[in-house]
Amino acid sequence: MDIKDRVGQRLKALRKEREMTQEKLSFESDVDKTYISEVENGKRNISMVNLEKLVLTIGYSLKEFFDDESFR
Amino acid sequence: MDIKDRVGQRLKALRKEREMTQEKLSFESDVDKTYISEVENGKRNISMVNLEKLVLTIGYSLKEFFDDESFR
Repeated sequence: MDIKDRVGQRLKALRKEREMTQEKLSFESDVDKTYISEVENGKRNISMVNLEKLVLTIGYSLKEFFDDESFR
Repeated sequence: MDIKDRVGQRLKALRKEREMTQEKLSFESDVDKTYISEVENGKRNISMVNLEKLVLTIGYSLKEFFDDESFR
C-alpha cells in the first residue's frame, strides 16, 4: 500500500482513538481541515513539519505514530 | 530541536552506519544528491514519499527510522 495511504489511515485511526473530530484537530493544530481530510484519504504527500504538528496535536509522538506494522 | 534537524541527523547517522556515501544513496534512491545533503543539514522539510525512498534505500524501515529518542 502506498505510503500516503498508510500515513493517512494511521492518522485517522489515532485521531479516532482520541475521539477527536477533523474540525477539532484542524482548530488545535492550525492545519486546514480540507488538507487533513485529504491526508487521511491518501491524497497528500505530507511533509514532516505538518505530520509532526498533527501527530503531536492528537497526543502521540512520531515514534509512537510509526510504531505500527504498516511501517515495518 | 527542530524536526527538520532531527530527521536530517537521524538520516545521516543511519546512512553512515551502513557506510553509504551521499553519492551512492543518491544513485540508488534516484533522489538528487544536493537535496539529500540539504535534508541531512536540516534545510529541507522532506515529504513522506521522499523520506521513505531514502530510508528504504539505506536499508531501514520507517518504523526503525523513528524508533529513536529524538522522536519520543
